[in-house]
Amino acid sequence: MALLPRVVVIGCGFGGLEAVRALARAEVEVTLIDRTNHHLFQPLLYQVATAGLPAPAVSAPIRHILRREMRRGRLTVLQAEAMDIDTAARCVRLDDGSALPYDHLIVAAGAANHWFGHDDWAAHAPGLKTLADAFAIRARVIGAFERAERCTDDAARTAWLNFVVIGGGPTGVELAGTLVEIARHTLADEFRRIDTRQARVWLVEGADRVLGAFEPASSASAQRQLQRLGVEVMTGCRVTAIDADGVTLLAADGERRLAARTVLWAAGVAAAPIGRRLAAACGMTPDRAGRVPVTADLSVQGHPEVSVIGDLAAAQSDGKPVPGVSPAAKQMGRCAAANVQARLQQRPTTPFRYRDYGSLATLGRMAAVVQLGRLRLSGYPAWLFWLFAHVYFLIGFRNRLMVLTDWAWNYWTFARHARVVAEPGRSTKVAET
Amino acid sequence: MALLPRVVVIGCGFGGLEAVRALARAEVEVTLIDRTNHHLFQPLLYQVATAGLPAPAVSAPIRHILRREMRRGRLTVLQAEAMDIDTAARCVRLDDGSALPYDHLIVAAGAANHWFGHDDWAAHAPGLKTLADAFAIRARVIGAFERAERCTDDAARTAWLNFVVIGGGPTGVELAGTLVEIARHTLADEFRRIDTRQARVWLVEGADRVLGAFEPASSASAQRQLQRLGVEVMTGCRVTAIDADGVTLLAADGERRLAARTVLWAAGVAAAPIGRRLAAACGMTPDRAGRVPVTADLSVQGHPEVSVIGDLAAAQSDGKPVPGVSPAAKQMGRCAAANVQARLQQRPTTPFRYRDYGSLATLGRMAAVVQLGRLRLSGYPAWLFWLFAHVYFLIGFRNRLMVLTDWAWNYWTFARHARVVAEPGRSTKVAET
Repeated sequence: MALLPRVVVIGCGFGGLEAVRALARAEVEVTLIDRTNHHLFQPLLYQVATAGLPAPAVSAPIRHILRREMRRGRLTVLQAEAMDIDTAARCVRLDDGSALPYDHLIVAAGAANHWFGHDDWAAHAPGLKTLADAFAIRARVIGAFERAERCTDDAARTAWLNFVVIGGGPTGVELAGTLVEIARHTLADEFRRIDTRQARVWLVEGADRVLGAFEPASSASAQRQLQRLGVEVMTGCRVTAIDADGVTLLAADGERRLAARTVLWAAGVAAAPIGRRLAAACGMTPDRAGRVPVTADLSVQGHPEVSVIGDLAAAQSDGKPVPGVSPAAKQMGRCAAANVQARLQQRPTTPFRYRDYGSLATLGRMAAVVQLGRLRLSGYPAWLFWLFAHVYFLIGFRNRLMVLTDWAWNYWTFARHARVVAEPGRSTKVAET
Repeated sequence: MALLPRVVVIGCGFGGLEAVRALARAEVEVTLIDRTNHHLFQPLLYQVATAGLPAPAVSAPIRHILRREMRRGRLTVLQAEAMDIDTAARCVRLDDGSALPYDHLIVAAGAANHWFGHDDWAAHAPGLKTLADAFAIRARVIGAFERAERCTDDAARTAWLNFVVIGGGPTGVELAGTLVEIARHTLADEFRRIDTRQARVWLVEGADRVLGAFEPASSASAQRQLQRLGVEVMTGCRVTAIDADGVTLLAADGERRLAARTVLWAAGVAAAPIGRRLAAACGMTPDRAGRVPVTADLSVQGHPEVSVIGDLAAAQSDGKPVPGVSPAAKQMGRCAAANVQARLQQRPTTPFRYRDYGSLATLGRMAAVVQLGRLRLSGYPAWLFWLFAHVYFLIGFRNRLMVLTDWAWNYWTFARHARVVAEPGRSTKVAET
C-alpha cells in the first residue's frame, strides 16, 4: 500500500477543528497539533471569567470530540506547540525540537492578546483568550470585592470597587455588562462592610461608538442598554497609561485618570507569533496585526501546499477583508480542507467566499444586539436569540445541556455558582518549623 | 446598647462552618476568616483531580452558603490568613499585619499536606488538599498520557504510563481506583500511538493493609476490589526516595524501584502551621502531627476562651483519640459553639463526645467498603451507599443536583468531561519580535 499524503493542521480552534473533520473522510494521514488539550468555545469564555460557568462547560478535550474521526485510524492528535515552519524542508518544528513532516499544511494557530507594544500593561490589564486567562480574571474580580471588604481606607476601598474594561468590542461589552450584574445582584447582600452596589464599571473605547463591527443604530442601542444596566460608557478615549492603581485616558476634552485596581483588557488581539515566522519563511510581510496574507484559495503565495485560515489569515472575500469571527474561521477550515483534497486529486482549487450570517453580541442580563440580514433585534428578544444560538453551536450535547441548566439557574437565582477561586499561587505545604 | 461579645472563627472547613452556623443564632458578633473564598467538600476533591467533576461542583463561595446568617447582621466574613495568635492581647494577627481582637476564639484551620520532613518530595509527588492541588494533579495525569503519545523511546513512554499513588488511606485508594478507570475506559480509544490500557497503577502503603482505619475484613475486601479493578497494591512498603523519574521503596524482601513520571502523595497530612504557633503561645507542646492538645470541652488548657476543633485538635472522646474525619469536625464545631455560649451565660461547658456513624470509602467504579455499626457492605451496594451519602452531605441543593447529573453522565458514558487543563503557566502574550 502506498503511503498516504500527510496533512498537518496547527491549532484546534474553530478553523482547525473544522478542517480536521472535513479531512477525516479523505484518503490522507492527518496530524493535528495544539498547545492545549481542549477545544475552547471562545464566545462563552467571558462566562468562565465572570464565574457564571465552570471551564468544562465551554471547552472539551480535543481527543474526545474527535474520537469518531480517530477511530478511522488516520488521525493523530498531539499536544504540542509549533515553534517554527520550515517551508523548504516541509516540516513543522515542535517544542521538543522534533520535526513533523508534511505534504500539506494548514495553519490555524489563531490570535493572542496584544497590548499594542505596551507589554508592561499585561500585568495590570489581563486579556481574555484562554482558560488560564479566564481563571486569572475570575480571581481578580472576585478578589477585588474581598479586598474592598477588608479595606479601612476610603480611597483604597473605592479603588477596589472600581472596574475598567478597555475595548468596546464584543468581549468588552460582555465583560462590562456582567461585572455590573455581579456587583448589583450576585454579591449584593453578601458583604457586611461594603455595599457592592456602589461599584463602578467603566467601558473605555477608542472609537466613537461601541461594537464598531455593527451598524451605527445597533451600536447606539448597545450603548443605551449598557448604560441602563449601569455601565459608564466612555467612547473616543485613548488609553495612555495603565498601572497597578488605574488607567490614564486621553479624550477630546483632555486627560483623565480612573483610579481602579481591576482593569481588564479587551482592546486588541494579534495573530499568533507563528504567523510572523511563517511569513518570514515565505518571504512575505505580515499585516499590521501580524496576519499572513493569503491568496484567493487560502494558500500562501508561492506555497500552494501551505494554507492559513482563521484569525491568523489576512484573507479577502469579494474584495473585502474577512472578519475575525468564528463562522469565518469554520468556513475557511472547510474551504482549506476541500482545496487540499482538490490539489491531491489535481483538480482546480475553489476561491474562498465568506458567507456572513449576521452578527450577535450580548451585553449582560437580557440585553443584546442582533443583526441578521435585514433583521435587527435588541434587548430581551436579542438576548434570547443570542442565548439559543450560542448554546446551539456549543460542542457536544453534554455541554449544551450543562450550559442551559447553568444559565437557567443563574437567571432565576442571580447566583454565579462558579465563584470559587483556586488560588494556584498558594502553597499547601506545612512549614517544617 | 452594650457591645456584643466578639467571637472569631479561623477556617471555614467542616468544623468552622458548623461553628459559625451554630453561633449565628447567638447574641455574639462573629468574624469568620478563611484563606480562600470557598468551603471545600474535601471527600469529593479527588473527583476534581481526576477530571470527573468541575471545581464548582465540590465547592461553594463561603459568602453564598452563609448569606442567610449574614443577613442577620452579626456575621462578618473576611478572606484573610491568620498568621499568629496573641493569646495575651487576645487578638489574631492577619496577613496584612492588622490585628483582629476576640473575646472567644475557635481555631479550625485544618490540615495541610505533609511529606514527613522530605520537602523535596513535594515537587515530584503533589498532595491533594486544595482546589489548586486538584488542578495540579489533573494537569499531571492528563498530561502524562499526552507525553506518552509523543514519546519515541520505549522506556520513556512506559515511565509516562506508570502511576504511583503513595498512601493507602481513603484518598489514596480513591485516586488509584480512578486512575485505572481513566486508563482502561475513559481514554481507551482516544490515542493512536499508545494503548492506554497498558498503563500501570501502583498503590503503595507502609502498613500491612490498606484503609487502616477500617476493620481488617473491610481492608481485605478493599484490596481485592482494587486488584480486580487493576490496581497493583503494595503493602508493607516504605518510600525511601522520590524524584522526577520514580520512587524507591523498601519492602521486607529488599529495595525496589518503580520508574514512573507521575507520583501522587496521599500518605500524610499534618496540622496547619498556626497550630504550632498557638501551642507555643500557650506554652504547650503540639503532638507529632502538629495538633494542639485540647481539654474535654475542646478549649486549650489555661485558655478557656480559645477552642481548637477539627483536624487541628488532638482531642479525646471516651479515652480514645478523635479521628480526623468530617463528621468529627462538624460535631466538634457544634460542641465548641455551644461551649462558647455556655461560658458567655456562665453555664458549665459540655465535654465533647464523638459519635461514630461509621466509615465509608470508595475505590472506583462500583467499588467501595462501608462499615456502619454492625452493617458491613462492599462492592456495588457499598458504592451506591457511598454515592448517595456523599451527595446528601454536599453543600447546597444546586451542587447536589450538579454532582448527581455529572455522575450519571460519567457512569453511563465512562467519559470524564472535566478533562480540560488550563495550563496557567502558559503566557498568551504575543511576542513583539
